[in-house]
Amino acid sequence: MQTLRLGLIGSGFMGRSHALAAHAVGLVFPQPVALVCELLADCEPGQAALQAQNLGFRRSTGDWRALVADPQVDIVDICTPNHLHYPMARAALEAGKHVYCEKPLALAVGQSRELASLAGARDCVTLVGFNYARNPVITLAAELIQCGELGRIHHVRGTHVEDYLADAFKPGGWRTRRAQAGLGALGDLCHVLSLTQRLVGEPTEVCADFQTVVSERPDGPVENEDQVHALLRFTGGATGTIECSRMAWGRKNGLTLEVSGSAGTLYFDQERQNELWLYRSDERGPEGFRRILLGPDQPDYAAFCPAPGHGLGFNDLKVIELRDLLAAVAGTAPAWPDFAAAARIDAVTDAMARSHRRGGWVGVSDPAAGGAGGNSQE
Amino acid sequence: MQTLRLGLIGSGFMGRSHALAAHAVGLVFPQPVALVCELLADCEPGQAALQAQNLGFRRSTGDWRALVADPQVDIVDICTPNHLHYPMARAALEAGKHVYCEKPLALAVGQSRELASLAGARDCVTLVGFNYARNPVITLAAELIQCGELGRIHHVRGTHVEDYLADAFKPGGWRTRRAQAGLGALGDLCHVLSLTQRLVGEPTEVCADFQTVVSERPDGPVENEDQVHALLRFTGGATGTIECSRMAWGRKNGLTLEVSGSAGTLYFDQERQNELWLYRSDERGPEGFRRILLGPDQPDYAAFCPAPGHGLGFNDLKVIELRDLLAAVAGTAPAWPDFAAAARIDAVTDAMARSHRRGGWVGVSDPAAGGAGGNSQE
Amino acid sequence: MQTLRLGLIGSGFMGRSHALAAHAVGLVFPQPVALVCELLADCEPGQAALQAQNLGFRRSTGDWRALVADPQVDIVDICTPNHLHYPMARAALEAGKHVYCEKPLALAVGQSRELASLAGARDCVTLVGFNYARNPVITLAAELIQCGELGRIHHVRGTHVEDYLADAFKPGGWRTRRAQAGLGALGDLCHVLSLTQRLVGEPTEVCADFQTVVSERPDGPVENEDQVHALLRFTGGATGTIECSRMAWGRKNGLTLEVSGSAGTLYFDQERQNELWLYRSDERGPEGFRRILLGPDQPDYAAFCPAPGHGLGFNDLKVIELRDLLAAVAGTAPAWPDFAAAARIDAVTDAMARSHRRGGWVGVSDPAAGGAGGNSQE
Amino acid sequence: MQTLRLGLIGSGFMGRSHALAAHAVGLVFPQPVALVCELLADCEPGQAALQAQNLGFRRSTGDWRALVADPQVDIVDICTPNHLHYPMARAALEAGKHVYCEKPLALAVGQSRELASLAGARDCVTLVGFNYARNPVITLAAELIQCGELGRIHHVRGTHVEDYLADAFKPGGWRTRRAQAGLGALGDLCHVLSLTQRLVGEPTEVCADFQTVVSERPDGPVENEDQVHALLRFTGGATGTIECSRMAWGRKNGLTLEVSGSAGTLYFDQERQNELWLYRSDERGPEGFRRILLGPDQPDYAAFCPAPGHGLGFNDLKVIELRDLLAAVAGTAPAWPDFAAAARIDAVTDAMARSHRRGGWVGVSDPAAGGAGGNSQE
Repeated sequence: MQTLRLGLIGSGFMGRSHALAAHAVGLVFPQPVALVCELLADCEPGQAALQAQNLGFRRSTGDWRALVADPQVDIVDICTPNHLHYPMARAALEAGKHVYCEKPLALAVGQSRELASLAGARDCVTLVGFNYARNPVITLAAELIQCGELGRIHHVRGTHVEDYLADAFKPGGWRTRRAQAGLGALGDLCHVLSLTQRLVGEPTEVCADFQTVVSERPDGPVENEDQVHALLRFTGGATGTIECSRMAWGRKNGLTLEVSGSAGTLYFDQERQNELWLYRSDERGPEGFRRILLGPDQPDYAAFCPAPGHGLGFNDLKVIELRDLLAAVAGTAPAWPDFAAAARIDAVTDAMARSHRRGGWVGVSDPAAGGAGGNSQE
Repeated sequence: MQTLRLGLIGSGFMGRSHALAAHAVGLVFPQPVALVCELLADCEPGQAALQAQNLGFRRSTGDWRALVADPQVDIVDICTPNHLHYPMARAALEAGKHVYCEKPLALAVGQSRELASLAGARDCVTLVGFNYARNPVITLAAELIQCGELGRIHHVRGTHVEDYLADAFKPGGWRTRRAQAGLGALGDLCHVLSLTQRLVGEPTEVCADFQTVVSERPDGPVENEDQVHALLRFTGGATGTIECSRMAWGRKNGLTLEVSGSAGTLYFDQERQNELWLYRSDERGPEGFRRILLGPDQPDYAAFCPAPGHGLGFNDLKVIELRDLLAAVAGTAPAWPDFAAAARIDAVTDAMARSHRRGGWVGVSDPAAGGAGGNSQE
Repeated sequence: MQTLRLGLIGSGFMGRSHALAAHAVGLVFPQPVALVCELLADCEPGQAALQAQNLGFRRSTGDWRALVADPQVDIVDICTPNHLHYPMARAALEAGKHVYCEKPLALAVGQSRELASLAGARDCVTLVGFNYARNPVITLAAELIQCGELGRIHHVRGTHVEDYLADAFKPGGWRTRRAQAGLGALGDLCHVLSLTQRLVGEPTEVCADFQTVVSERPDGPVENEDQVHALLRFTGGATGTIECSRMAWGRKNGLTLEVSGSAGTLYFDQERQNELWLYRSDERGPEGFRRILLGPDQPDYAAFCPAPGHGLGFNDLKVIELRDLLAAVAGTAPAWPDFAAAARIDAVTDAMARSHRRGGWVGVSDPAAGGAGGNSQE
Repeated sequence: MQTLRLGLIGSGFMGRSHALAAHAVGLVFPQPVALVCELLADCEPGQAALQAQNLGFRRSTGDWRALVADPQVDIVDICTPNHLHYPMARAALEAGKHVYCEKPLALAVGQSRELASLAGARDCVTLVGFNYARNPVITLAAELIQCGELGRIHHVRGTHVEDYLADAFKPGGWRTRRAQAGLGALGDLCHVLSLTQRLVGEPTEVCADFQTVVSERPDGPVENEDQVHALLRFTGGATGTIECSRMAWGRKNGLTLEVSGSAGTLYFDQERQNELWLYRSDERGPEGFRRILLGPDQPDYAAFCPAPGHGLGFNDLKVIELRDLLAAVAGTAPAWPDFAAAARIDAVTDAMARSHRRGGWVGVSDPAAGGAGGNSQE
């Protein structure tokens, strides 16, 4: 059995979640490869050593460049602050490593496209951590759509609204600084675009409106948007709206998606992540939405639990994600969203930012802007 | 006690609902005036006579112009197909009558404005039947906002989505003909704009996207839109989205509204019309949305039932609406939405149509378009 | 067309609700008979005259015995405090009138049975006002069960829990006095037994536990139960639980019912009275409960509104109830629950009280206790 | 740091869940001890070796008695079929090991009590795996009750209803055999009693009704109950109902609990395991149940995720449970439910079985029956 050695950069919440997944994936899913937690990098050698012990890694380093260059590392796993994703991923690809990177892939779409090209050229497997998109409930939704249960899709309504900066007196931190975060609410919460990509496809035109609701916080001015509202038109003819907000009091993980087609409607709400609501126009008897509770009919749930209604949590989704990465490295199935797919998501957020600046509709693949590779909020 | 005599034009579902309200209003709410069901007009004298008997009206006529001119009629109540609202309301105002008219007030905003002016000039009381806006739950929402429970509003998300034409093989009927219906889904389902008007105020700029999903139905081409998605900016700084659809499989009366401000969030869903969801950022203890069930603390509910949880239905909302009209005629309180308010709603739908044609943002009060009085979908 | 003249005794909330129904029933449902609001009785002539005017009755009287004896009255409608139901209903039946009586029919099952016998002997039509049982959603549930969609029923869980006396410092009033109210929470909230009677049939054995949680209130000792929990066994083999409480903080009209059989499950919650939840074991595709929203496929809803999702309220249910009474008087369909059916419900509550006193299982039709006709809480 | 060595018996679904927890616990919660996955026993040496490799254990054995006797094992973890729990736990205690055992602890209350005594005598730490009771939502509920937010508890309604044997044509397997399973639905689903024990305390008297709905299945007669309904009286005065069923079509993990007191009500539903519903009678403004979404204010959630709304799943609950066991072994906090607590739960199920046989109320601690130690369904 092939052995793959993981090199993890970053050991905060997300790094720990990846470590949990690395230890669990082989127990949950029969693996074609053996995964070894080889090397952990953190900004400081002492901290790295401590965390390597805590998280079950063999070795540690205080220098991420050493990790990237380490011949004992097959997969570089990037769990650092957003603005470091691009340089780390680039270095890893240049070193010929497979790369698993948390979202967003980069702060500008040009960088994302560059990384995607590089990955293609080097034949490296890549995956971006859009967690929620791996939910077996979303997999079920995708299957239902592919089987034609909704017919031809004509409508999408997506939200990802939270309240983590709803309090105007809360410091904004790095999230409100353009240099560190790039986009604001849209950058944080573009998960909704990964769901639409998986279920509906690519938007071709967007028209967006950005607002910075609280322009000044205790730690200084807010440099990016607090909420975004956007109209979208998709390949295939569907249209709809997307909304992201970090100012939506009471919404804790308000990642919702409603998709309607000629034959039915699907609805999902991440706050009740083990449920999918399905309406089919051809049901027998009194009509209504059906509340489907995740159960072992879905293989990615069955791997965790043979009985329905026991529920998956966030960390379980990371296990599924890692399983997909390993399968791609082993060559048994492609991984999604790879850097190319993530660059297409970034192209949408970039187009939204352009649309806001121009005050109207823009094409997602608009070459004039997309090629610039500059800061998308300029 | 003053006696007011009602003249009802139209005796279909909506006419009957108004008749029910006319017989009930005095029993539910102590009235400053006595309401008499005086005269009923329908297109044909025999039908009118039969319906007058069925619906408890004293007299009948096959000629609505006779009703409008009748000196024994104080209030003209218009429950006819949409394209007849304007000529009937104009004739009634010209005859100096108070007018209660179902929505939409007219097929073009110019006509709505003309009627509003005429009502002002003649000092006639007017009211447009935006049913759901009278729900005591919405009244509670308005009170909470007015008391500052949400703080400064920065976000609105409204939908009114249904599935009455989701089946592509269903004939479109008059609703899909521009001459009879004017707008399509937006015209039918602009109720959501009456809610936003009441709770948040007036939009100043809009950017909308219209789609006719099914262009051809068994009874001919579809001449207006099946679904609308729009971005809005409101006086006061709030922004948000509005969506209307007659193609949303499974949604039966999907009139929903979410409003967020600096201190909290409100959520309403007409399919569960006796509930309001409230999140306040300053609650004691573990936070969460509170599900408020309509009860006798709300006077407009208490008038129907002294105990909570018994529920109001659609026809009850019409009783409240009529109560408001009678109060306005008696001079004890203004009625809302009167023709001026309805014209402002029509200005928004008109602006959305203009936005769609232009492909970008437009001002709601854009004089170039508003003054034309032409068909807003031209 | 036959004319039926209604004599209403009592003009509180419930009397007014009956009056509203009397004025609306002919508009909502095509009637085989004409209903006239003939005579209203209240305890005092002046009040009666005022209320007759308010509620649209032709004449009034301060003496209910005069109403019962009035030859111009065909139907006696009893909306008075509970302890007056029995003497009034008996007098009305002895006068050969049809009788429409609010629940409970009497304070002791012996009295209920006496009234049922008398009604049978005099061939009078009777109906007891168990409001919620007329909900078209319950009618749909009954149809689904009758069509075999649930298979053979083996389980029932019913609750009717509210919080109107949850506050220990609130005076109990007449509801806590045995002479006026008879039973406490169980008497008030035995609606749940009317639902089970309609959907599942008759319990044959019960085992109940009564508690008086607050034994002393500001206005004196509490003489009857605050909450009741009971086990039931039904004809046909189903078993289950019933619970009533007036101490369930937060529950406003917590009338719920879950019924399971060999092929599926139904769930209803009166606080969301326009919905029914249905699970069928033979559905195609991913399984789940279906949320059915009341719509015009149900005739008793269609009579109010041709479009789905508009919702019925409490007062609408009274219109349906009155329609059933009039149909029974006209001879087109039997009314349910008539006095015989209500006596069977009272037999169940009586058996529960006996069970509590004995501390174990009792038969519902136990002749030793049932024949006594005494106060069931003795 | 102290090292504790785990010996796992059984490697089915539950064994794997324990293994996942063993690998994760140190990453999620800072541990006072180091946990090593030392030895895995399965019925056959080859299978044991394979599973030891799959689940990350150092050594394996085909003989559970060898594991129990192994000096390198500190904690014996029992994840075998129900009828083996008792002999294995006894042997482990006799060998002086700490014991972590899946529920039910034994098939007869006498055995459970014997094990509890033995654990006390040997000073062994014990824990029984009642998963759902470790949910941080339940911990929050317990804290709210302890802080007096509900006042004095007077009512409990608990259910654990599922549909795993609702299909009458499905073989019953070991679950329907008394020798292997002991009780039926009540034994499987007595989780609801662990929740009531944690939140409300001990029942003192019960009155239960058992039914075997499907007496004969394809693989033979059904020897234990399909559904149980019971009345309970608790120390402290609360009363209520408990219901367990394996025949409740559509209910997948219908573990629900509603608790009411003099000041409020709590509601929990395992199918939405990241939510708690709270009603407090002293809230400001319009009243209603509050939907609390699990978030980092709860430490046992924060250990998994610093942001709210991400959700925990079943396997996460096992990590919390194991954390508690390790803390008890390290002496920093007692573990619950230990064998003594589990024996009290078994005493309740035993009392329910006695109640059913006797046909009435029985005391939970009834010495005549409790001491027998015989099969509780005799």
